[in-house]
Amino acid sequence: MARTKMPIPTLRRIPRYLRLSEELLRAGIVHVSSAELAERLGFTPSQVRQDFSALKEIYGISADGQQGYGYRADSLRTNMERILRLSEEKSCIWIGVGNLALALAHNFDFKRCGVRPEAAFDILPEKVGTTLRTLSGEIPIYHVDSLERYCTERCPRMAILTCPPAAAQNVADILTHAGVTGIWNLTNVDIRVPEEAELENVHLSDSLMTLACRVRPDADCP
Amino acid sequence: MARTKMPIPTLRRIPRYLRLSEELLRAGIVHVSSAELAERLGFTPSQVRQDFSALKEIYGISADGQQGYGYRADSLRTNMERILRLSEEKSCIWIGVGNLALALAHNFDFKRCGVRPEAAFDILPEKVGTTLRTLSGEIPIYHVDSLERYCTERCPRMAILTCPPAAAQNVADILTHAGVTGIWNLTNVDIRVPEEAELENVHLSDSLMTLACRVRPDADCP
Repeated sequence: MARTKMPIPTLRRIPRYLRLSEELLRAGIVHVSSAELAERLGFTPSQVRQDFSALKEIYGISADGQQGYGYRADSLRTNMERILRLSEEKSCIWIGVGNLALALAHNFDFKRCGVRPEAAFDILPEKVGTTLRTLSGEIPIYHVDSLERYCTERCPRMAILTCPPAAAQNVADILTHAGVTGIWNLTNVDIRVPEEAELENVHLSDSLMTLACRVRPDADCP
Repeated sequence: MARTKMPIPTLRRIPRYLRLSEELLRAGIVHVSSAELAERLGFTPSQVRQDFSALKEIYGISADGQQGYGYRADSLRTNMERILRLSEEKSCIWIGVGNLALALAHNFDFKRCGVRPEAAFDILPEKVGTTLRTLSGEIPIYHVDSLERYCTERCPRMAILTCPPAAAQNVADILTHAGVTGIWNLTNVDIRVPEEAELENVHLSDSLMTLACRVRPDADCP
């Protein structure tokens, strides 16, 4: 399959189609129309049709839409998994072993996302030399001083940033300079990376703001 | 200001306009065109113009677009803050005081999102009766058995779910039944709430999948 040329906004909808297809299959539902998909995901039906026509064009695969039946939930799942390349493993390192890192390491199914954590880095003497427990096994914690050398020698594909916000840009510079090509930035500050690298800045505050403004303030409390 | 009637997809873009306006102001930039906004945010220019025309219609406020100059960054910031009601305080409780809760409590600026954490709930004896440190002060940790009574008596507006995934739906049912109207669900499983309540299911895996599929797999490593 060629490297993806899909527009990022379309790509962002793929995990949602995937989750919905899994939910449908668990509920024993075999077919789903684009109108139902749109309604359950909060997209417009024309958005769904556009997405699937773009996927067909880029990947030559379709969600098996059949006149009168809609799409097959199992094909939908398989094709979304293929588009997301979930079966291709990407090695991943971790920078910053604080509470957020622990919460994710202990609970988050990285394997399901095609990601294999292989080492972590921190600055605190009580952490360096110990291990970080993940769902797929323990990974070593090294001192951040050895980060650059590790990346040059071992060529990890991705990095998860859970370091203090003030260190985020500097760490990202070291990583991308040493050849890391994907950065999952959970530090809640925006960082920049060179064009050849891929970046996801996760902004939990965007989601909380979006929610809070739809809720009545305390002053309206009965 | 009337309660928001803005479509959720538009609403989700507001925090991003806000962040960009803050970034522009920090860089000393006074005006920004819709084309520049679009480029920096990865939207289409027509999306930006549509958003601002919708905001004008709903709120009667504009981003002060001026022919030839574009939008003023300071008006953009003020108006996005108003739309997000950041100055209206919403009381909030927390269910589940694990690593993720600690990471957020210690580092996340809830006040900036218009949210005031006021109590936390857990089931573990070593946590109940202690406090949770947040950026704006310590909040008490109560036993989850007292959750329903607390909600009925104190009327918190929002709840943050950082409990184990298996408990998420049950906790959400208790909360919405007791009058909590906004749920920020960080348990990584989808839950449902009654129509009168607002919900944000945060799926960190969507973001990681979207990133990982843009990165070359280990097999391509030189």
